[in-house]
Amino acid sequence: MCRWIAYRGETTAFEHYVTEPEHSLVTQSIRALESTAGTNGDGFGLGWYGDHPEPGLYRETRPAWSDENLRYLCRHLHSHLFFAHVRAATGTAVTRQNCHPFACGRWLFMHNGFVGSWNRLRRKVEAMIPDALYPSRLGTTDSEAVFLAIVGAGIDQDPIGATRKVLGSLCQLVNQDGLREHLRFTSALSNGHDLYAFRFAANDRANSLYYREDGDQVIAVSEPYDREPDWIEVPPDHVLVARASCAAEIVPLFAAGTAGL
Amino acid sequence: MCRWIAYRGETTAFEHYVTEPEHSLVTQSIRALESTAGTNGDGFGLGWYGDHPEPGLYRETRPAWSDENLRYLCRHLHSHLFFAHVRAATGTAVTRQNCHPFACGRWLFMHNGFVGSWNRLRRKVEAMIPDALYPSRLGTTDSEAVFLAIVGAGIDQDPIGATRKVLGSLCQLVNQDGLREHLRFTSALSNGHDLYAFRFAANDRANSLYYREDGDQVIAVSEPYDREPDWIEVPPDHVLVARASCAAEIVPLFAAGTAGL
Amino acid sequence: MCRWIAYRGETTAFEHYVTEPEHSLVTQSIRALESTAGTNGDGFGLGWYGDHPEPGLYRETRPAWSDENLRYLCRHLHSHLFFAHVRAATGTAVTRQNCHPFACGRWLFMHNGFVGSWNRLRRKVEAMIPDALYPSRLGTTDSEAVFLAIVGAGIDQDPIGATRKVLGSLCQLVNQDGLREHLRFTSALSNGHDLYAFRFAANDRANSLYYREDGDQVIAVSEPYDREPDWIEVPPDHVLVARASCAAEIVPLFAAGTAGL
Amino acid sequence: MCRWIAYRGETTAFEHYVTEPEHSLVTQSIRALESTAGTNGDGFGLGWYGDHPEPGLYRETRPAWSDENLRYLCRHLHSHLFFAHVRAATGTAVTRQNCHPFACGRWLFMHNGFVGSWNRLRRKVEAMIPDALYPSRLGTTDSEAVFLAIVGAGIDQDPIGATRKVLGSLCQLVNQDGLREHLRFTSALSNGHDLYAFRFAANDRANSLYYREDGDQVIAVSEPYDREPDWIEVPPDHVLVARASCAAEIVPLFAAGTAGL
Repeated sequence: MCRWIAYRGETTAFEHYVTEPEHSLVTQSIRALESTAGTNGDGFGLGWYGDHPEPGLYRETRPAWSDENLRYLCRHLHSHLFFAHVRAATGTAVTRQNCHPFACGRWLFMHNGFVGSWNRLRRKVEAMIPDALYPSRLGTTDSEAVFLAIVGAGIDQDPIGATRKVLGSLCQLVNQDGLREHLRFTSALSNGHDLYAFRFAANDRANSLYYREDGDQVIAVSEPYDREPDWIEVPPDHVLVARASCAAEIVPLFAAGTAGL
Repeated sequence: MCRWIAYRGETTAFEHYVTEPEHSLVTQSIRALESTAGTNGDGFGLGWYGDHPEPGLYRETRPAWSDENLRYLCRHLHSHLFFAHVRAATGTAVTRQNCHPFACGRWLFMHNGFVGSWNRLRRKVEAMIPDALYPSRLGTTDSEAVFLAIVGAGIDQDPIGATRKVLGSLCQLVNQDGLREHLRFTSALSNGHDLYAFRFAANDRANSLYYREDGDQVIAVSEPYDREPDWIEVPPDHVLVARASCAAEIVPLFAAGTAGL
Repeated sequence: MCRWIAYRGETTAFEHYVTEPEHSLVTQSIRALESTAGTNGDGFGLGWYGDHPEPGLYRETRPAWSDENLRYLCRHLHSHLFFAHVRAATGTAVTRQNCHPFACGRWLFMHNGFVGSWNRLRRKVEAMIPDALYPSRLGTTDSEAVFLAIVGAGIDQDPIGATRKVLGSLCQLVNQDGLREHLRFTSALSNGHDLYAFRFAANDRANSLYYREDGDQVIAVSEPYDREPDWIEVPPDHVLVARASCAAEIVPLFAAGTAGL
Repeated sequence: MCRWIAYRGETTAFEHYVTEPEHSLVTQSIRALESTAGTNGDGFGLGWYGDHPEPGLYRETRPAWSDENLRYLCRHLHSHLFFAHVRAATGTAVTRQNCHPFACGRWLFMHNGFVGSWNRLRRKVEAMIPDALYPSRLGTTDSEAVFLAIVGAGIDQDPIGATRKVLGSLCQLVNQDGLREHLRFTSALSNGHDLYAFRFAANDRANSLYYREDGDQVIAVSEPYDREPDWIEVPPDHVLVARASCAAEIVPLFAAGTAGL
């Protein structure tokens, strides 16, 4: 399991959201509260949008709590839309390429969850990545494979639809042969303008997801980084949609019964 | 490109072969002579056989020349059969999982070479790995994929035959659609008893391979680590076979014309 | 704070003591029980004695729990006397040179504890290292500085006396100007034959120390790695002495009142 | 030896100067031309000034040529004054804390050079660091020690005077007992407004230093990153001074005979 934060709003230094809060993501890297993994020390990452057409990435294998570079970068990097993630590995190696966020073209993705029996299902999930995107498969995680499958399913035209399509296929996979493997998918997705955050699970309890909205600012998190009362829980099987210059909306991920569950 | 050394003989500390010689592998990591890459600073690895049924591995992403651990381990590890490798990446990431040697069951493998247009051919080469071995695919290199394909092609029954079979398939792949991609394969393979070293290329010049034999000791190298005159060049398209307690032999890899070239 | 284990006995693979037990050191790296730091993820190290006159070292900055090399090495390295340590940094950087154990000539040292207000006292502690040993100051921790001071205080002639002398000086330092800084020193020391384990504190509670004896085997630990009832607590201000081929003894570190407290 | 670049001018993305040029610093990390060390693969660093009162730092131990983060950061970080450095270690460990640039308050420093017989002279050079600055001694290099000595010698009042004072003391040290140790000091220093670049040596040949000026832009480098004819060599024993909004000047470091040589 992992912990993450996604920010959309006024351009700001990351530190106010990633390192400074009382129960910041860096604090969560050593002691998370709402996670099955208390320690999220298997690497971390930052992803953000700036002037360049492609997002920036900083990913490291050491724990977030001891990385001096992270503190400097969170102080000096500014963005109107950024992701930060601390990782608790679920079986795949601790490499930078397995750290979140993942980038593909304009898109950033990060994830807290897993595909059950990954060793058995991996090949089938990887087969969902189109040939043209397979060179972007830099690591070995379930998360990256699912992301590239989503990109390939038409993310530019309809990001929620593409995600829905891939989750539908994943549900079929985990339920094949009556095995009912677990699937958890609490993730964030962005093209630099719009921010989407998904909370979904099949055959399992969905990982936590909260958000806070203040004017144009929308912040989605695995767990609140402070004790203020304005955090709103996103219900399971729902998506937080925060399109550029629009207020946040919570929409159901699937119409009743369509996930193939 | 990479540099490597494979040792079979009396049980010995690695340092006499890996760190101490005038032009040792560690020296070659910063300045190789017979390689297109003068610097082999993209990680390194040791693999060896001891009392345990499975071989040991030590793989690191930092350059061999600055790793203090490597010096201690080469002084303290002893084996009758060990591999050491310094890496010059050819497009895939610098992670431990992409460093050589690779281990699968009793088998160790390391490689100097590449499959041309890896991004395009990767999927087809990965498809050569049987399902049962796919969980052993820990990294993203061409070398590891080719190794697992060889394991899957019947390595336990006939290691040279399995290698020949996979190289035959690779030759078909690189020649598909008349593209004649380059393929270089200078590699070492062992089960802890027998040592095999291959020198092969298709549509390209084969990377260098030498060996030296002294009593029961057989040492295969990418390039000699000293100026003694007893290094023997293995000809292209040949295999060095050093079976347990047997003298080394050089045998042709393919009967004339059978590689599918 | 940190967790460690020191083994003296029959030559054995490390894995039976470092990675396999129910509450092994690797488990303690992610969740220690008797420590102020539950997570000991700031690097780790192994030190051991073999045929070579100088001990071997393997130190890494990543957490012990995710290091593949550690598992291989604990399986393949054998010794009659070895140290293993997982680190929770107390202010100094996460570098290999700051990971324990530390080696100097034949001697190995590892530590769980700290010198209070290290930034203020560091220079004075470093001044206790003789010039001839200052090139061995590779890192910046209090632990390494204290070790080199002990080496310089006559470790070869009288290791307990040298440690006593240095602890006496440290007690004077931490009590200077009536400041009563904290000092904790729970450490292991060996020359490859004899094993010493110290439990001491000034102005503070001493960190835990246990040992178990079984025939020629003596194992000292920060906290027990299993629930067997034969672990014996070493009292504060005492030393466990396990000289080569001798039974373990517990002796007072200071005669009453002589620590300069 | 090392290679570095210092930029002062219009706010720009680093990539145009650090990663894109034909013979960029990243290219120099694997193959420098005017250096005794052809490979500068022992870590690297970036230092820069932004809105925050203190400069930013990104330092890594892996070679610059294989760091994906470096490419992203050079594309996304912007500054009017930044430093970049690739390291070839001269005896001290490869840790982030030993990578350049070094920061202290508003000041950044990076260095290509060494203090001869560092193991013997280290203590005397460290003694030149005032107590108040000793907590900023995070690594073990000669470069960092010399920088902190310069900061302590009155850098805020007179940076050139402070450097001159410390170089004078170093000259006395290396010449003590008639030993005439080598000293090379080709370095860059900045407070975020003014840029200074020094070229100096005692008992040795000074390392190369060039600069280019174009309007408000001043770029100082170890060796030119392109073949344009407008690079000007800074003579040995001279300083390049580029004060905020002023044209660059070359001034002698010492009046004849005053270095204590």
